[in-house]
Amino acid sequence: MFLNNRLIILATLFSLMLFFSAGITHAQQPADFVNPFIGTSNYGAAYPGPIAPRGMASISPFNVAGPQNLPLEKDSRWLSNPYVNENTFLTGFSQVNLSGVGCPELGVILLMPTTGSVETNHLKYGSTYSDEVAKTAYYSVNIDKYNVQGEFTTSKRVGVSKFTFPKGQSNILLNLGLGLTNEEGAMVKVVSSTEIEGMRSVGSFCYNSPEAAYPVYFVAKFSKPAAKFGVWKKPSKQEGVEAQWMTYNGKTRMMDNTTKMVVGDSIGTYFSYEFDKTETVEVKIGVSYVSIENARENLEKETGNKTFDAVYKETYNEWNEALSKILVEGGSKENKTIFYTALYHTLIHPNTLNDVNGEYPEIKRGKIGTTKGTRYTVFSLWDTYRNLHQLMSLAYPQQQSNMVKSMLEMYDENGWLPKWELNSTETFTMVGDPASIVIADTYLKGIQDFDVQKAYRAMLKGADQIENNPLRPGLKDYIEKGFLTTKNGGPVSTTQEYNASDYSISLLAKALGKKEDYLRFKNRSLSYRKLFDKDLKLLRPRTVNGKWYEPFDPVSGANFEENVGFIEGNAWQYAFMVPHDIKGLIKLMGGEKAFSNQLQKVFDIKQFDMANEPDIAYPYLFNYIKGDEWKSQELVKKLVKEYFQNKPNGLPGNDDTGTMSAWLVYSMMGIYPISPGDPIYTITTPMFDKVTIQLDPKYYKKKSIVIEREVNNDGKIKQIQLDGKTLNSYFISHDDFVNGTTLKVIQN
Amino acid sequence: MFLNNRLIILATLFSLMLFFSAGITHAQQPADFVNPFIGTSNYGAAYPGPIAPRGMASISPFNVAGPQNLPLEKDSRWLSNPYVNENTFLTGFSQVNLSGVGCPELGVILLMPTTGSVETNHLKYGSTYSDEVAKTAYYSVNIDKYNVQGEFTTSKRVGVSKFTFPKGQSNILLNLGLGLTNEEGAMVKVVSSTEIEGMRSVGSFCYNSPEAAYPVYFVAKFSKPAAKFGVWKKPSKQEGVEAQWMTYNGKTRMMDNTTKMVVGDSIGTYFSYEFDKTETVEVKIGVSYVSIENARENLEKETGNKTFDAVYKETYNEWNEALSKILVEGGSKENKTIFYTALYHTLIHPNTLNDVNGEYPEIKRGKIGTTKGTRYTVFSLWDTYRNLHQLMSLAYPQQQSNMVKSMLEMYDENGWLPKWELNSTETFTMVGDPASIVIADTYLKGIQDFDVQKAYRAMLKGADQIENNPLRPGLKDYIEKGFLTTKNGGPVSTTQEYNASDYSISLLAKALGKKEDYLRFKNRSLSYRKLFDKDLKLLRPRTVNGKWYEPFDPVSGANFEENVGFIEGNAWQYAFMVPHDIKGLIKLMGGEKAFSNQLQKVFDIKQFDMANEPDIAYPYLFNYIKGDEWKSQELVKKLVKEYFQNKPNGLPGNDDTGTMSAWLVYSMMGIYPISPGDPIYTITTPMFDKVTIQLDPKYYKKKSIVIEREVNNDGKIKQIQLDGKTLNSYFISHDDFVNGTTLKVIQN
Repeated sequence: MFLNNRLIILATLFSLMLFFSAGITHAQQPADFVNPFIGTSNYGAAYPGPIAPRGMASISPFNVAGPQNLPLEKDSRWLSNPYVNENTFLTGFSQVNLSGVGCPELGVILLMPTTGSVETNHLKYGSTYSDEVAKTAYYSVNIDKYNVQGEFTTSKRVGVSKFTFPKGQSNILLNLGLGLTNEEGAMVKVVSSTEIEGMRSVGSFCYNSPEAAYPVYFVAKFSKPAAKFGVWKKPSKQEGVEAQWMTYNGKTRMMDNTTKMVVGDSIGTYFSYEFDKTETVEVKIGVSYVSIENARENLEKETGNKTFDAVYKETYNEWNEALSKILVEGGSKENKTIFYTALYHTLIHPNTLNDVNGEYPEIKRGKIGTTKGTRYTVFSLWDTYRNLHQLMSLAYPQQQSNMVKSMLEMYDENGWLPKWELNSTETFTMVGDPASIVIADTYLKGIQDFDVQKAYRAMLKGADQIENNPLRPGLKDYIEKGFLTTKNGGPVSTTQEYNASDYSISLLAKALGKKEDYLRFKNRSLSYRKLFDKDLKLLRPRTVNGKWYEPFDPVSGANFEENVGFIEGNAWQYAFMVPHDIKGLIKLMGGEKAFSNQLQKVFDIKQFDMANEPDIAYPYLFNYIKGDEWKSQELVKKLVKEYFQNKPNGLPGNDDTGTMSAWLVYSMMGIYPISPGDPIYTITTPMFDKVTIQLDPKYYKKKSIVIEREVNNDGKIKQIQLDGKTLNSYFISHDDFVNGTTLKVIQN
Repeated sequence: MFLNNRLIILATLFSLMLFFSAGITHAQQPADFVNPFIGTSNYGAAYPGPIAPRGMASISPFNVAGPQNLPLEKDSRWLSNPYVNENTFLTGFSQVNLSGVGCPELGVILLMPTTGSVETNHLKYGSTYSDEVAKTAYYSVNIDKYNVQGEFTTSKRVGVSKFTFPKGQSNILLNLGLGLTNEEGAMVKVVSSTEIEGMRSVGSFCYNSPEAAYPVYFVAKFSKPAAKFGVWKKPSKQEGVEAQWMTYNGKTRMMDNTTKMVVGDSIGTYFSYEFDKTETVEVKIGVSYVSIENARENLEKETGNKTFDAVYKETYNEWNEALSKILVEGGSKENKTIFYTALYHTLIHPNTLNDVNGEYPEIKRGKIGTTKGTRYTVFSLWDTYRNLHQLMSLAYPQQQSNMVKSMLEMYDENGWLPKWELNSTETFTMVGDPASIVIADTYLKGIQDFDVQKAYRAMLKGADQIENNPLRPGLKDYIEKGFLTTKNGGPVSTTQEYNASDYSISLLAKALGKKEDYLRFKNRSLSYRKLFDKDLKLLRPRTVNGKWYEPFDPVSGANFEENVGFIEGNAWQYAFMVPHDIKGLIKLMGGEKAFSNQLQKVFDIKQFDMANEPDIAYPYLFNYIKGDEWKSQELVKKLVKEYFQNKPNGLPGNDDTGTMSAWLVYSMMGIYPISPGDPIYTITTPMFDKVTIQLDPKYYKKKSIVIEREVNNDGKIKQIQLDGKTLNSYFISHDDFVNGTTLKVIQN
């Protein structure tokens, strides 16, 4: 349980009471260590409000609108979070949100309690707030201006809000204009004094594909009938001669008591009450990406007549069960906190897209599909191919299997595997063709209950189709020359990404007995070497003529500066991003010593960026150099300590839908999936005495695998044993690992 | 059948073929005389497209958008019609329209056929047009730019469009942004390649009550599945720092193949076809003011699998039956044309509001009501209380009964009788409390199958409730002083209107045996006399101190200039608007001679306005002066000839939902309901040898009543006989009239 800032004793007592009344025994469970405030500052882009594991609905306090929140105000900059911990001006509670992404999206359907007469301008009805409490599946806060307490929990597809109002007129606003997304447009219809239905347009993620904007549908049910209700609409101001007669031109209009359908860019509803004593109202909001009817069914099936507390308890239990798949012992409370919060963050996205009846919108099609399992969405694959899916394969293989199946459904629907899929839109954000890596990695780890032949066909299509290939622009150059040239954006980065994908395809081809493809793609995966500048010992871009691009500054491109050659990074941050060919890279660089020096230089000249993915595996690369492994151990320990902390700015930057968090989870367990696609881990010192990973019997023979550490003074690993047998390297295959009983990391 | 402008032989042949193929015998039926082009110029505000009698749906060619249509362009001025006959630039066919009103409203859901690639900007896809054909229940036109023929018919709640496309790519656009209304906002969802559903916001009639804006729902079904379809949306342009990343900011986006719900101020759908030969596509659009489901049910129940021709034939037959309630013989074709077109115009509004299942939106409430009869809407009562409802009571008493019942339902729902009701919104346009007059007039004519006690209570409420009375502002002054003062708008006009209402209430009170009320209201009805200026022999405004308002120019206020004292008129145009107390007025003016002179002066100094209601009965007032009746006869004949003609500008101005047309129908029949509320007609020369009015046996004893004329040279009436007995005045009671057999107007 974590309290932010202005904790008062009353709130503590209250939340303790809630704990006990919910019947949860208070022996510190994994879910009790989660601090949802971690990552709510420093652009972590996490939010402190509740969500169920891989939930469709979530609730976030919304405090990024209004000049009071400058400089972190949503319209004044590129800001991707509905909540910033250091902001102070709250304008509601959004009911669908993205966690840890880099572009503004969702953050809509804003519920806001107020008192007194109805005010519809969020700049006027907004308030400071205090006494925030955030924990697994629960958030509460006091809204200062109105002395209203808001408490929030969710089921998978339903947000549940509970407001405690003082005596007098109280209002619950549902603002469909305000939102984090840059899309506009909503529809609303008050069904009765206890129900509202409608939709809000969202989309254009990362300012792309506005034509793919789509609706999120909702149904809201109130526990008490409103004494008065209505809809407001602020139309856009009309110009021209005729407008002179419109005294109401561009002004907000109050449509009291209406049950008609209302549409507009800036609309909302109010439900008003007259209370003669302190009273609570609960609001359940079911959402769906298919239809209002499905939103209503989601609401009924998941929450029906359940109380707030009952929903909270169920979701808490679901989280606790999920988080208990990895039990850690013998570490500080702080370390347990950052560990379980990170694990929590890896279980938010990809999230559920289908309704309780199985329906979901197919990708890029007008059709509604039906799944029998779970249709997942929010595949930020350029991020997550590096470690998150590997973590899922290990500890949550059923989920990972369904994620792969979802990706194959997208291929069926759309003709292509996903790249950066978001609520069945393909945003085409970032570069590369990462789905192949995720699928190969999953298959090679023994999670094979999907149509691998189809998956392989899909990979080949992405890898080989030169014309009209949305996944691999520049593929012709890549195949013919081995690299993209400067006529494409980020040609070096993209070449490296294609290499990584091709390597995974080669591994899968080999496993499937397709020897020719295996060799072809293995060969393709090494083409980055043509971009290696021996003088600089770095990769650098070539022009269409094959010449080095000039001028070339290896440092340019850090901190998201645009540069020729690289996407979100510079030559230093990409130099070692060939995890499948580190041995080849060592040769290119002139041997182990030169490689190790060059790698060390990245850190020495402060070009290592913990906050972005291309160099995320660098700290582990010293494991490839015999005798230098201690550098990895020290680096990982140092980076964890520096960047991952139990406080709002306790993530190095965007969580990238859990990728940063997955890095932390692995790093604290003492293993890391060093080469995506390769079923292999590299080893460092665990940060707990004992880590027990439950294995899913559907996919694994053993019930669990344990990682233990034996600590000494200098902190360097002296020996690694699997079930008592010494390993002669800092690497272990996935098979050996999951078929073992105990991996022991000995520093004595 | 009427052809506009650029008639070509082919079109004639085609439409003749249509007539025969529809199996209509071509002995000139009443419906064949209707020329829907009448009133489509000179601000008549009629449209030439099809509508069923009192239909909810109608189709109008829409040619008031775009600079090509200046000066009669909708946004450049106050323009209340979807179509202007002299305009040339067509941008679609609107599916709901008002006829003959003075404010822009409806004119939305614009269907437009195009060819070639899809263009969504109406200024670019618009076209000139030719070969217009307009007749009862049918309109057709050639859209020049695309060489597409459009044909249109309707059932009560469904518009049916038939497009004949040339070979190649053809498109049917459904534009939900463009419209005559000043409201904006729409929702659309493509259901399949043959169906679209959605809604369009309309309202704010006469720039009033924007908060009462409401949706018109629709379902569109296409006879052929589209090869491609999609939705376009042009969002409003966002401002601010963040908008710099939105390369698509404010630009139209094409959402191909989408079946998601889309909302916005400027949206539409396209359905595209690839034809390898000339092909037709029929589009049926069902509408509803209740829900999309009801729109769909309306469509299915009314038109189901019927062909365009079948729907046309049914609606034609319904019109012919309705128009045949009054059969005219022995007149010119031109006179029959203007007569039946006028009668047609009186059968458009009030129109049907309820869906086929009986549901309709209750007035000013969020509720959905259900009617077993017909719920009517569009009560422009300030206009229609003067003659239109009297015509309904005579020839369509069942409709008039349902109109009264609808008004009483509004009282039940809203607490007040209607004033200017439009699609269950009270627009409060104009002044006075005219519902009482309509109801009393109906009851006193023997149409009594409604709850007259409730009606009476409703009238009293409007007449007596001083505080918060939306119908009669200024009532306190009116009751205390006998008149409104200049602190209210149009105090003289309003006093006169209240007098007229009070007179009707007194008549009903008398009939109901409420003697005290009878005397009280009769007395109240004469209070206009306090505003009579003996020097000017005119009514003029008084200030709050009771003094004449200065300066006073009796001529000021003509042509809709604003003036102190009068609404839509000046002192001359209101001086005689006390039809219930003409004898009193004669006294005030100093006797018959002075009265007659003053009345003549109105015409002599050209202050008579044929285009507006206050003085609409003036031409008949000479009938009150013995010996001067010939002046009425000549005036009426002259005015008909001058203002009512078989051409687009053949109405004197706004038809005012049929009021001008009702004046013409009565005037051509030779009788006129001179004093609203009084069941009495005054008599002039009929313009046909024989007029046979069918009487509804549910309300009348006789099957029909005949009016005959015997013509002489000087055109003056010498004698009037009812069933052979000479009348000794130019007035006849409704009872005497309908219980007679033949009213003979003899000029010999």
